[in-house]
Amino acid sequence: MTDFSATKEMFYLPEGMIYLDGNSLGPLPKAAPAKMAEVMQDEWGEYLITGWNKAGWMARPTEIGNRIARLIGAEENHVMIGDTLSIKVFQAVAAAMSLQHAKGGAAAARKVILSDNGNFPSDLYMAEGLIKTLDRDGTLGLELRVVDPEAVAENLTDEVAVMMITEVDYRTGRKHDMKALTEKAHANGIVTVWDLAHSAGALPVDLAGCQADFAVGCTYKYLNGGPGAPAFIYVNPKHADVAEPALSGWLGHDAPFAFEQSYRAGAGVERMRVGTPPVLANAALAAALDIWDLTDMETIRARSNELCDLFIKEVEARCPMLELATPRDASVRGSQVSFRFKEGYAAMQAVIARGVIGDFRAPDIMRFGFTPLYVDEQDVIKAAEIIEDVMINDLWDQPEYKVRNRVT
Amino acid sequence: MTDFSATKEMFYLPEGMIYLDGNSLGPLPKAAPAKMAEVMQDEWGEYLITGWNKAGWMARPTEIGNRIARLIGAEENHVMIGDTLSIKVFQAVAAAMSLQHAKGGAAAARKVILSDNGNFPSDLYMAEGLIKTLDRDGTLGLELRVVDPEAVAENLTDEVAVMMITEVDYRTGRKHDMKALTEKAHANGIVTVWDLAHSAGALPVDLAGCQADFAVGCTYKYLNGGPGAPAFIYVNPKHADVAEPALSGWLGHDAPFAFEQSYRAGAGVERMRVGTPPVLANAALAAALDIWDLTDMETIRARSNELCDLFIKEVEARCPMLELATPRDASVRGSQVSFRFKEGYAAMQAVIARGVIGDFRAPDIMRFGFTPLYVDEQDVIKAAEIIEDVMINDLWDQPEYKVRNRVT
Repeated sequence: MTDFSATKEMFYLPEGMIYLDGNSLGPLPKAAPAKMAEVMQDEWGEYLITGWNKAGWMARPTEIGNRIARLIGAEENHVMIGDTLSIKVFQAVAAAMSLQHAKGGAAAARKVILSDNGNFPSDLYMAEGLIKTLDRDGTLGLELRVVDPEAVAENLTDEVAVMMITEVDYRTGRKHDMKALTEKAHANGIVTVWDLAHSAGALPVDLAGCQADFAVGCTYKYLNGGPGAPAFIYVNPKHADVAEPALSGWLGHDAPFAFEQSYRAGAGVERMRVGTPPVLANAALAAALDIWDLTDMETIRARSNELCDLFIKEVEARCPMLELATPRDASVRGSQVSFRFKEGYAAMQAVIARGVIGDFRAPDIMRFGFTPLYVDEQDVIKAAEIIEDVMINDLWDQPEYKVRNRVT
Repeated sequence: MTDFSATKEMFYLPEGMIYLDGNSLGPLPKAAPAKMAEVMQDEWGEYLITGWNKAGWMARPTEIGNRIARLIGAEENHVMIGDTLSIKVFQAVAAAMSLQHAKGGAAAARKVILSDNGNFPSDLYMAEGLIKTLDRDGTLGLELRVVDPEAVAENLTDEVAVMMITEVDYRTGRKHDMKALTEKAHANGIVTVWDLAHSAGALPVDLAGCQADFAVGCTYKYLNGGPGAPAFIYVNPKHADVAEPALSGWLGHDAPFAFEQSYRAGAGVERMRVGTPPVLANAALAAALDIWDLTDMETIRARSNELCDLFIKEVEARCPMLELATPRDASVRGSQVSFRFKEGYAAMQAVIARGVIGDFRAPDIMRFGFTPLYVDEQDVIKAAEIIEDVMINDLWDQPEYKVRNRVT
């Protein structure tokens, strides 16, 4: 059992705010400022350059990677922290493409990176940039193929080199079946890259059990690492010593401080380091992960499902104009609830002004994230009441929102 | 006039330590922990997701870029902060290659990235990785050509697409002539990428005056931004709207929050953003830059030359076994002094144990950085005295160091 009233106490939450946007940016862990002050004053201040060894700054990305590995079902020493999620997507997809290329023959002839239009745009953009770099003249015929989320499985053909999918849709919260898609991809000779941005800390992930090839994710959403906290990358053990880093920076070198003239990839996931680790950001993230040590993902998931189910029930009973965009079935849902509403942008602004913080995603998604570490039933019910009050009383008769028109 | 005793007071320097390694990692600005606490508590804590706009987190990389622009002679709004230096090297060289490619004809046929063996290894490694990505089958014949620093000029031939050079050698402190090399490169149709890791905050740089095409650098050395502080990239105005980002992340998109399915590069250097900005690291960096507002690079340079000259004179007078590796002529030197000594690693350990912090770079370089903001003449003389004591009294008769053998 996790004591969620105790974990809630570990976050700073502004008075009068119900924070349902932890799927965008987690709140401040109360212990984080002190941890940061310690790293700045006692480590940077006192040790200066010797902090890299004395304070363990250089080893920290591996250690933090292992703490995250536990939350995403990854093998120990196969998760590395650093850079941003977009960079990690580039690394993972580039390495996946190079694995296919290294096989030669039919594998090397595969030309498609397959994704879906529920993927976060930056993943698509990074894949576009990678394709332009790999194939600047277009002579290789490489292609980013973006299909509907429901059509991913049927598009896992022998043209596809890499399947690049975000498990949970950032707008609707619809969850892919990682195990089934990975199995089908493998059966068709495809290397998989999973983006766990809306999975890590939101629901149990079983990378090892699914035999996922690569995974990436961010730590500032459900993991509460702070704005711009570093991203992570997972490489399956079977690829870890052969995956070729396109972003071959010195800290991924087998002997960074030998200052050799040519790159030699380091062992395993260490080669996915690029440049100097973000020591200060890592301090805040480490403090955030201390709270995760008090729970486990099965417990979080059960609680998250309860909260999401309750929110759907409460909001639907109160606000007939809101159309559920998230799957009602918890097994195919992440840890967020989204509603479609034509005037959703204005409505969300009004809801936020009343202290319930969700967010809006074009064209019409009102999005609310549920994070058991600091959101409880009382918050959910109170949020539904405020949303009702905004939608029915504040907006109902305002012709510019056309609320009454829409539902009557 | 800069009041250097006042700026020295603005840094936390451990009692009894003479810190001559600001060329690796600058010391803690005393104001940085409070600034960080403010960003964590008052912005992240209070604003949560709304901090991106309310606290200006999203605009901060552009603002900080402009503060750095002043120190490196760059045009306003042409420097962007983010990622690590290795990533910025990749971005710059990839963009430079794509400029040549876009020209077509003879420019597109150029196959060589030219660098020198005084460049920092990570720059070479990143170029290797880029070449492997651009030319995975080797059919394009792309090549990283690494020559001696003295041979760069004569190797600026019509085979060269991009010249990628670090202005100041991280080991010897030897400084390239940026203006002359850039001019010669341009006369030969070559696009230039300058790494300012050991230049920014060390000496005046005139990117605009030199018509440099791209430049990159880091902020944790002379600029004192903290361990793992973000890097910067400069793009010349004439390229800013045409340079193609290989790392095409969502925050470099023209409309990141429109969540379009395809990438469209943002205006100017904004397209060199990739992922979510490192808000906490930016807070420490902003505090460090406040100190830079109190001085200018001409004043820093004059003072740095005085300190380096004094250190060379004092050490050479005391330690005949140390061989100067840095140019004696200040005009071709950065802001560091290096000595060669066969047993340099052990000697530097002994010097560090006595409170003079320099560092060692293989195979035989004892390296000392001079940073007028917090190092003064007294430090220099005291450091020379301690080095003398270590080299003459502590090590002289220790047969394992062979000091006496070497100089007698």
